[in-house]
Amino acid sequence: MPEAVLRKAQSEMLSYGSSGMSVMEMSHRSKDYMAIIEAAEANLRELMNIPANYKVLFLQGGASMQFAMVPLNLMNKNKKADYVNTGVWSKKAIKEAGRCGKVNVVASSEDKTFSYIPDLDPSTFDKEADHFHITTNNTIYGTRYTSIPDTGNVPLVADMSSDILSKPYDVSKFGLIFAGAQKNLGPAGVCIVIIREDLAGNQMEFTPTMLNYQVQIENGSMFNTPPTYGIYLCKLVLDWLKDQGGVEAIEKVNNEKASILYDFLDNSNLFKRTVAPKDRSIMNVPFVTGSVEKDDAFIKAATAKGLVQLKGHRSVGGMRASIYNAMTLEGVQKLVDFMKQFETDNG
Amino acid sequence: MPEAVLRKAQSEMLSYGSSGMSVMEMSHRSKDYMAIIEAAEANLRELMNIPANYKVLFLQGGASMQFAMVPLNLMNKNKKADYVNTGVWSKKAIKEAGRCGKVNVVASSEDKTFSYIPDLDPSTFDKEADHFHITTNNTIYGTRYTSIPDTGNVPLVADMSSDILSKPYDVSKFGLIFAGAQKNLGPAGVCIVIIREDLAGNQMEFTPTMLNYQVQIENGSMFNTPPTYGIYLCKLVLDWLKDQGGVEAIEKVNNEKASILYDFLDNSNLFKRTVAPKDRSIMNVPFVTGSVEKDDAFIKAATAKGLVQLKGHRSVGGMRASIYNAMTLEGVQKLVDFMKQFETDNG
Repeated sequence: MPEAVLRKAQSEMLSYGSSGMSVMEMSHRSKDYMAIIEAAEANLRELMNIPANYKVLFLQGGASMQFAMVPLNLMNKNKKADYVNTGVWSKKAIKEAGRCGKVNVVASSEDKTFSYIPDLDPSTFDKEADHFHITTNNTIYGTRYTSIPDTGNVPLVADMSSDILSKPYDVSKFGLIFAGAQKNLGPAGVCIVIIREDLAGNQMEFTPTMLNYQVQIENGSMFNTPPTYGIYLCKLVLDWLKDQGGVEAIEKVNNEKASILYDFLDNSNLFKRTVAPKDRSIMNVPFVTGSVEKDDAFIKAATAKGLVQLKGHRSVGGMRASIYNAMTLEGVQKLVDFMKQFETDNG
Repeated sequence: MPEAVLRKAQSEMLSYGSSGMSVMEMSHRSKDYMAIIEAAEANLRELMNIPANYKVLFLQGGASMQFAMVPLNLMNKNKKADYVNTGVWSKKAIKEAGRCGKVNVVASSEDKTFSYIPDLDPSTFDKEADHFHITTNNTIYGTRYTSIPDTGNVPLVADMSSDILSKPYDVSKFGLIFAGAQKNLGPAGVCIVIIREDLAGNQMEFTPTMLNYQVQIENGSMFNTPPTYGIYLCKLVLDWLKDQGGVEAIEKVNNEKASILYDFLDNSNLFKRTVAPKDRSIMNVPFVTGSVEKDDAFIKAATAKGLVQLKGHRSVGGMRASIYNAMTLEGVQKLVDFMKQFETDNG
């Protein structure tokens, strides 16, 4: 989280504006709170240039709940969908969709531990698929799509949990975008859904009401009490991003941050990048020394220096620097300086 | 929220303990965060005296998600369940269960706008029901059960969203208890589930993974990133409740708060209570003047005095004083003093 956001939340913790109460204590239907959720949506629409025929929802359950909610609502026509398997999150999405119909995995990079984005051959796409699912950025493996596949009339669904708002996306190319908030948007416990309105309303009969996009749209994300405080924090993060100059401006910073790390990794004698250069993420940068002992020593030494959360995901090991929007250029430089020193000392 | 909790959260907003980071920024699998969620669970177990064969889950989606999750997981044997209809929340629960099997509504108080708790006749209970559902306290109507029905071998499921921790409950009488956090537990966006462990693991085939109790149990509520900050706030509220002397002590305060209001209402010439005296809640106290104009004038005048959130639910109108654990005796006294004055001025 940007420090400015935490400071603002801190200052408003006991009393929001002139309300005399914490945002946590407000009724979600009060005027004060409605102004907050409406501002959060307006900010997101402005920052992502979301077309008018798309609805914005603030839901719960994270991306993992969307893995089920998407097929429950979208796979009720032809009961089949295309998925690209680029890692743990894609696999989980594929598994959930499998409960609702037939899943066609059009491509996978599992053969090389998901260290690249597979080439897509449009002739393998099913023209009758109810949707086509991709994970735009793969947090654990540090890969990301450099171009968005053209799926024609088949709605493209994107899990953007780990790169939403990190660079511009043309929302009109997607049928549905979802993102757990906890990377670039706010705290864990809020999930953003951007859905083209014609895609809602065709859910399967056994869909729980809470997982029905049409119901959530009709109720403005308030079929029941939404995660009010989390949405307020998202609003503050979006305010902050506007102050930074918006998505185009933060993309420049993100590219610079990533370049500092990749330039160092490409020339290091000790540290190695794990991802195909053409597909490397600007949000998550995994690297290894090639030795588990040296990896552990590096993480321990970095932690002692206050450089934390560098351990790779438990499924892959090694290290991973997550350089989301809130990470500063100085923070990345500090990490690279430390890596250089560690290399000198342990090379 | 208790003011002490908000102050504590405020002081720790930028750095929790010696971690140097906000709870919002912690990995949910970090040592610091694991200590928080474990303390939250330990506090709840201690305060509610939860037996060892019950699991505690911190989930998302509120009680409304549980209305679906309960039948998805519990109605896979005989595909039928008994429900008592005591208001809006019971009705929503009945609707969701209807997607999973046959619902037998054993009793209802809908004939008198849910202003009482219906008598239950055990001979109408289905011995083969997969579960039996009640709403222990009805927020909107201000009613609550004075005794818990004996459902024999049929697991009793209780929606305790609005009275959990307000008074002692014998958890062993229930198969499953759930409660949205936003009344007595913490902020909106966290839902507590207390489930007897033998009831998990028999979900219907199309149950989304996130709605599978067994999966959530096996993953310690961390199948995906939980609402970390909300759970931290629950932990602080539970710390606070222990400081107040626990559930037995807060019950005394709650009874006293409710008595002050009911004693006044029983003797008022202007304000009338709406609930049968035997069934009246100690958490939610609805009342009316009998005139919509006077109701509106009262709410307006009270708001001007800083006495807020007194408007009754949009489905019933009138007024409602919600006097959850965090409301002080002084706060209730202040309200009654204002009501007396209003009565004198407008009687």
